[in-house]
Amino acid sequence: MLHGAIESPRIAYETWGELSPAGDNAVLLFTGLSPSAHAASSPDDPSSGWWEDMVGADKPIDTSRYFVICVNSLGSCFGSTGPATANPATGQSYRLDFPVLALEDVAHAGHAVVESLGIDRLFAVVGASMGGMTALAYAVAYGERTDGVLLISSAARCLPFSIALRSLQRELIRTDPAWADGQYPFDVPPIVGMRLARKLGMITYRSAAEWALRFGRERATDDVAVAGSARSPTADGAGGRFGIDFEVESYLEAHANKFIGAFDANCYLYLSRAMDLFDVADHGGSVAAGLQRVRAKRALVIGVESDFLFPPQQQREIADGLRAGVADADFKLLPSIQGHDSFLVDMDRFRPAIASFF
Amino acid sequence: MLHGAIESPRIAYETWGELSPAGDNAVLLFTGLSPSAHAASSPDDPSSGWWEDMVGADKPIDTSRYFVICVNSLGSCFGSTGPATANPATGQSYRLDFPVLALEDVAHAGHAVVESLGIDRLFAVVGASMGGMTALAYAVAYGERTDGVLLISSAARCLPFSIALRSLQRELIRTDPAWADGQYPFDVPPIVGMRLARKLGMITYRSAAEWALRFGRERATDDVAVAGSARSPTADGAGGRFGIDFEVESYLEAHANKFIGAFDANCYLYLSRAMDLFDVADHGGSVAAGLQRVRAKRALVIGVESDFLFPPQQQREIADGLRAGVADADFKLLPSIQGHDSFLVDMDRFRPAIASFF
Repeated sequence: MLHGAIESPRIAYETWGELSPAGDNAVLLFTGLSPSAHAASSPDDPSSGWWEDMVGADKPIDTSRYFVICVNSLGSCFGSTGPATANPATGQSYRLDFPVLALEDVAHAGHAVVESLGIDRLFAVVGASMGGMTALAYAVAYGERTDGVLLISSAARCLPFSIALRSLQRELIRTDPAWADGQYPFDVPPIVGMRLARKLGMITYRSAAEWALRFGRERATDDVAVAGSARSPTADGAGGRFGIDFEVESYLEAHANKFIGAFDANCYLYLSRAMDLFDVADHGGSVAAGLQRVRAKRALVIGVESDFLFPPQQQREIADGLRAGVADADFKLLPSIQGHDSFLVDMDRFRPAIASFF
Repeated sequence: MLHGAIESPRIAYETWGELSPAGDNAVLLFTGLSPSAHAASSPDDPSSGWWEDMVGADKPIDTSRYFVICVNSLGSCFGSTGPATANPATGQSYRLDFPVLALEDVAHAGHAVVESLGIDRLFAVVGASMGGMTALAYAVAYGERTDGVLLISSAARCLPFSIALRSLQRELIRTDPAWADGQYPFDVPPIVGMRLARKLGMITYRSAAEWALRFGRERATDDVAVAGSARSPTADGAGGRFGIDFEVESYLEAHANKFIGAFDANCYLYLSRAMDLFDVADHGGSVAAGLQRVRAKRALVIGVESDFLFPPQQQREIADGLRAGVADADFKLLPSIQGHDSFLVDMDRFRPAIASFF
């Protein structure tokens, strides 16, 4: 699927727990667009992971029972080969010479990790958001060797509304003059574009209902607004007439600032685009045919009522389609109010839902 | 409410029909953010207006029965005083010297037009979107002299989700280097920022459901994609890897291109911000108290199920609050799928709904 080829890509991954003697307790976890493979703390890296509440000993994805492998997506920038890493042919970073990336490629790269660890079957492949699409791609390709499939806030193919939003996020980066057609020095990345893309992303990852409760029409406190404006490269020089006023604006500003230097711009473009390109119908000619190729024993598809980026009918569609090939395919719709990000933050609802699968 | 003052602002307006001898058939129409006062064709200007299907002889807002006045909002750029017009004190355009604009100011300016035409009472004040908030501000201020209130896809106060979206739209303009702190030459406006803001706006004005039906995963046709890329200042020089691919991207590109030169950037900032600032609770201490001040005889509040920018509970809230002061206050929820823009495009549903009021 790569429109081009990468010689011997390197894939970074982390593991927790131990592979059972029977080799039947391995769980492969794919990530969303921006996380690394560090899903949870470990002896090697005690820092908190992106799914700290979910992965660990006695947690829903119980690392005292399962051998959990989280991969950094091919195309990402946390150790795996991607647009930011060196092209062996030139010694320079691939940048936009990196081939068009498909989530199937990310899935295959994850499989290479599984094989390198001597694992023949997976207890489950798991993912949320982009990770869910990648896990679905994995299940379609390696379904005979995957007993369980757990897909969260995901889709069989993205719809034009989310494609439009991601397209615009990429355009925000590309129209930043500092992006320089992808040739930016790594120490002078397109900060303005990345901050704007992050703000738009944050808006799509939450929900109007959550923010109405959380922020209402509260104004940002003076020191936050001033501090934010002082730090922000977008502060309006004309007396702050159009600077930060409402608390929700301050919240977005803080998230945008945290994203500076947190992710490589070209990697962002490639992975974002890979989400648009993914279509399970590519495998069999229709969504139904593609989903039918998944031959796992069990599947759980979870969706969130307030998710407007990956709306619930998309998870329902996956569950319906999986039933053709998976005897025990379940769909859970959670009433979380935090939108697409609920799997990261609504632990009261997500912990039991995911624990039910393991 | 103006944080500053404008000497003798000029307000552009258009009229259709004739004022009755009793002076009891005047309808005042406020507009959304981007339209001019040209709501419909007329002998003076036969070009199609922004609400051509709704305003005219034998149309729902029947100009053979009513004297219809549409005002160009104070702060806009189609003849009314605003950031783009000349400050008499300096001879130069106000730009960011223009005082902070409130929708109450826009409402008062509309009232000045009504008075200048010798009209004592309005049959109705009407508006959709920003125009609906302006009409509500008008009804609160001049309720004793307004018999009817028709508010479409509007709100008593905007919620943080829509505030966040508009804030980001303004930031897209402000971070365009060509915006130059509002000092751009009028022949070199911040095109890149305006195009991006327009794309984000378009995404918020429609709905995922409509686009799934309308675009699906269709790819843009080659000539559209190439032509769009050739025209577009955002075309990716790196072989179009991140250029237009899906039809929905082509659609947004076309709309963004149409917006070039169509609206002044500073005016956009002021009116967008005025929407964030508006809160009927400013008039009486609470939303309920503010709405209770409207003393019209009849009110109709219309909302659209698929509108996620001004969601239906906001129109329901207005209708509930108006009932305290308006004997005959009705709420209609239309099942249109085109989101916030439905009042402009779902004529099959909107024509009868609005005709029912007149």
